[in-house]
Amino acid sequence: MKYFTFSASVLRAFTENVFLKMGCSLAHATLAADVLIKSDLRGIDSHGVARLTGYVRLWEKKRINTNPNIRVVHQTATTATVDGDAGLGLVVAPFAMQVALQKAEKYGSGWVAVKNSNHFGIATYHALMAVEKDMIGFAMTNASPLVAPTFSTERMLGTNPMCYAFPAGKYPPLIIDLATSTAANGKLEIAQRKGENVPQGWLQDINGQATLNPTDLKNGGSLLPLGSDREHSSHKGFGLSATVDILSAVLSGASYGPWVPPFVAFLNPLDNQPGQGIGHFLGAMRVDGFRPIDDFKTHLDNWITRFKAAKPISPAQPVIIPGEPETQAESERTLNGIPLIDAVVDDLNSLAIKLDIKQLA
Amino acid sequence: MKYFTFSASVLRAFTENVFLKMGCSLAHATLAADVLIKSDLRGIDSHGVARLTGYVRLWEKKRINTNPNIRVVHQTATTATVDGDAGLGLVVAPFAMQVALQKAEKYGSGWVAVKNSNHFGIATYHALMAVEKDMIGFAMTNASPLVAPTFSTERMLGTNPMCYAFPAGKYPPLIIDLATSTAANGKLEIAQRKGENVPQGWLQDINGQATLNPTDLKNGGSLLPLGSDREHSSHKGFGLSATVDILSAVLSGASYGPWVPPFVAFLNPLDNQPGQGIGHFLGAMRVDGFRPIDDFKTHLDNWITRFKAAKPISPAQPVIIPGEPETQAESERTLNGIPLIDAVVDDLNSLAIKLDIKQLA
Repeated sequence: MKYFTFSASVLRAFTENVFLKMGCSLAHATLAADVLIKSDLRGIDSHGVARLTGYVRLWEKKRINTNPNIRVVHQTATTATVDGDAGLGLVVAPFAMQVALQKAEKYGSGWVAVKNSNHFGIATYHALMAVEKDMIGFAMTNASPLVAPTFSTERMLGTNPMCYAFPAGKYPPLIIDLATSTAANGKLEIAQRKGENVPQGWLQDINGQATLNPTDLKNGGSLLPLGSDREHSSHKGFGLSATVDILSAVLSGASYGPWVPPFVAFLNPLDNQPGQGIGHFLGAMRVDGFRPIDDFKTHLDNWITRFKAAKPISPAQPVIIPGEPETQAESERTLNGIPLIDAVVDDLNSLAIKLDIKQLA
Repeated sequence: MKYFTFSASVLRAFTENVFLKMGCSLAHATLAADVLIKSDLRGIDSHGVARLTGYVRLWEKKRINTNPNIRVVHQTATTATVDGDAGLGLVVAPFAMQVALQKAEKYGSGWVAVKNSNHFGIATYHALMAVEKDMIGFAMTNASPLVAPTFSTERMLGTNPMCYAFPAGKYPPLIIDLATSTAANGKLEIAQRKGENVPQGWLQDINGQATLNPTDLKNGGSLLPLGSDREHSSHKGFGLSATVDILSAVLSGASYGPWVPPFVAFLNPLDNQPGQGIGHFLGAMRVDGFRPIDDFKTHLDNWITRFKAAKPISPAQPVIIPGEPETQAESERTLNGIPLIDAVVDDLNSLAIKLDIKQLA
């Protein structure tokens, strides 16, 4: 496995060109590229440009509409439902967050459920839109089914992430962005490629039995909810994942549970969909709706300082503040570029040939 | 260990008498008793009348104010901060939820951060106040420190529960109410009493090493965040617990992290408190702010029906819908009474003698 390093601006231009070739407007192509590049910058390689070919394949299957009429279809002063018109989640979610921000600006908070969308990239991107305005940002999405509820062998839920982001003062924003499964799918894929076992508690086989073999996932097994097993409170991970699914889809009119459309183009959505597409839930609350923003930032800084100073088990590994490693990666990669593995570069260059755009160097 | 069974109304009357003797108004005594009895009815024995003596001891130490001036100290149309004036969380939290409900009624959603409060009982009680009005209820609270963040030996966080409650149609409300630690403290106490080991992944000793011995908790050890260890994503449990702490306390002006005042009267709060008392965060969103309530209920029923039918690992154990076992307990105990262990009955009768009220039969 070799790495090639590209500047963010090179990858951004490439990504914009792909979205333009898919028929996106310039504004949508720019925005969608921004979401993906943000993910690569923050070191979340699984959600960046490596996903481009996946989006193209879904578009080829007409499951992504690159000229969507994204609109509010239901609302009150502080709540709304957005119909994404089968658009890229990468542009639908920022649209919905803008609606939430406008409501929050006026009334203190804003909450938007989204139906008929697609994969929205990293939740952090959308939540940070609120933080930039000194608000608290919330972002979650359901996802294609890979996770079994406690006591079941069936894949009923996605890795359904939830994200909470808070503005700090002298520190970067505190960002909690987590999949509600124990293991990230990306880590399983790495173990699979290397032919290595994974820890007990990450997945189960087709019969619901614990397994260390990552290929069991492709053979009908399931990821496990955060907590791994009942004795370690996997029902809590299941409950959190259910919360994401209900807020994102039962509330908006998207599809939920086992009906969530697969992210991959080679799997077709199930028949008899109970809703439309993938669902998200986004929200923003003005900090100064509760206390003056400077007071909040001072105390969040104090919180962070105290947790950084928490007595470590090993002096070599202090407590990690949520979001801090990704913010460090963003600084470092902005300066030194984004490393891509050769397989991803090859994949993107094949895509470039197919779409007749300039290849990566 | 023997059990004695009492009707809810007998325990309710007893509990009201205790609160009245503490100097609560009749309205506050009635409300506080209702919160505790609801917990016993739902089978959450750790949060019901068994806690009465604890509340009395805190009151004796003047850490609970039974005649509080609970009030909104900051607000926008849909957000507010409530000062609980050191009152019982059992009455402060319902006050705050009423504020949230009024805002939601008018603007679609309402969000209230609470400072200067105390233990608020079960989060479910407060979240259900929203469900009764066809809204989605949110309730969380920070708690006295027992849990170490990933990589630390220090108790920096409480079991910090989060609760989400949704109104269903033909089914009872779907209620996700979970402590963000792997193990409930109650289960550890039972193991301790019985002299039994607990599963690996529930706690660590004073040096941050895994231990199966529940008494290590009293000797400077810590509970572990949901996920148990880094390999099983304990940083996610830490992140969820941090979210609860920040929304409940950094946002409201309550104390946070290691400074949260202990629930037990024999431990004094740390010096240099960064805020006032314990913090909560409560919220409500009108379902019909997103889609018609009947559509939502139909689809949530469909969600529940499908998850109940998910293929079980063992036919004897189907998937459990969050909140269902507690709702079943509530029906059963409303009919047949609430069993209390003899130690709790003795404790309550000693309390009755001390306060000069009628003992339990």
